[in-house]
Amino acid sequence: MHFTSERRHDDGVLERDFTLGDIPGTLWTPASATASSPAPLILVGHPGGLDRMRSRLTGRALRSVADGFAAVTVELPGSGDRPRDPAIEQARAELRGAIQAGEPVSDDIVDRLVLPLVELAVPEWQAVMDAVLGLPEIGGPVGYSGGVISIGVRLALVEPRVRAAVLFAGSYIPRAIHEEARRVTIPLHVLLQWDDENNDRQAALDLFDAFGSEEKTLHANMGGHAGVPEFAGDAAAQFFTRHLS
Amino acid sequence: MHFTSERRHDDGVLERDFTLGDIPGTLWTPASATASSPAPLILVGHPGGLDRMRSRLTGRALRSVADGFAAVTVELPGSGDRPRDPAIEQARAELRGAIQAGEPVSDDIVDRLVLPLVELAVPEWQAVMDAVLGLPEIGGPVGYSGGVISIGVRLALVEPRVRAAVLFAGSYIPRAIHEEARRVTIPLHVLLQWDDENNDRQAALDLFDAFGSEEKTLHANMGGHAGVPEFAGDAAAQFFTRHLS
Repeated sequence: MHFTSERRHDDGVLERDFTLGDIPGTLWTPASATASSPAPLILVGHPGGLDRMRSRLTGRALRSVADGFAAVTVELPGSGDRPRDPAIEQARAELRGAIQAGEPVSDDIVDRLVLPLVELAVPEWQAVMDAVLGLPEIGGPVGYSGGVISIGVRLALVEPRVRAAVLFAGSYIPRAIHEEARRVTIPLHVLLQWDDENNDRQAALDLFDAFGSEEKTLHANMGGHAGVPEFAGDAAAQFFTRHLS
Repeated sequence: MHFTSERRHDDGVLERDFTLGDIPGTLWTPASATASSPAPLILVGHPGGLDRMRSRLTGRALRSVADGFAAVTVELPGSGDRPRDPAIEQARAELRGAIQAGEPVSDDIVDRLVLPLVELAVPEWQAVMDAVLGLPEIGGPVGYSGGVISIGVRLALVEPRVRAAVLFAGSYIPRAIHEEARRVTIPLHVLLQWDDENNDRQAALDLFDAFGSEEKTLHANMGGHAGVPEFAGDAAAQFFTRHLS
């Protein structure tokens, strides 16, 4: 993990860009985090394209940091400046083609787009955890926040350091991930934008129903994909505080 | 409005039983409520049977009172010791018969059970508001909290003093109420128990979808009818604080 830039906010929050191998990312640490009182960690997930998403990701990260968490995000495989995977790009093109033609998106396309992304991204998130939790001022339980929801499902299932997750509802869930969801047991807080132009509401409700977790909560709000209201962010923050602090 | 008993809690909360005409009820007032700083009011709705429901209703009322609200509940028409309406009782018997026989409950039964209850209960809630808001220490906006959801929908539509509502999802929504829901515009916070043995999940989702309100939020949690988790009550309380304080 190689820090490439560092910025100290007025409230003491430390924001550091880094690279981990060839993966770029940003780490936010609250002033309260010290080796004797390490901050728990939130993984800030997103659909890819760090630069495009930066203002929203920074807002989400700082919301968590205000509650005493460290927060980290990294670029997804095949997004931003990272090399593209030809097979994934082919599936992405087929997905766009189907949507533009008004045709249903086949399970096969979804599998070929999302499953390889999950296979690539989950070990990277685990490497990020290894590196960030190696810092003396960061430790303790980890929460995953965001989409890609299939990545969140897999992490929730296979990574014991992830103890709670705020998942952003999405469509295009591979059937295998839907089955994995039944075996997830950590507390979940699922955010659904009721009129999300990018998402299939019923698919989101079906996935919520499938989760095996004893504590799972669905918060549905009005507005489109990027219109999550501030009070919904507050509720998600309270969920993490309840489970990770 | 005739107070029949009075009890002062250790934290200064005043709990008073009353009758309004032949309607029994209970009013809770925070110590902070004075004529110069009147408390906004929460109407604590329920499916009927004050005595049976008392511990849960008291818990909900005191949660609101802790946030500075007054809270009031009254017996529903035809419940507790109040006289039964023969037509409603006939429809209730038909509903039970259909459920026990494993038959679908017809729209006609739902209409004959719920619509007369709404017609009776809504003017009573309005009379309760008139009386309680006439007390010097209570004033300002009103919130409705609870079931019967059809009563909440009608109140949200016709009663301008009700500025926000926490609605407990329920089945057996008359078609006319579903249509009224489209014209509701006040902020809504809908609680759905995902595995509620008494309720039809899809009917609840359809009603949520129908509401015309620009701000509406659905909070779905695990557990059965009476198993609303404490954090869901906290979120509902925050909703009222956001809109009524």
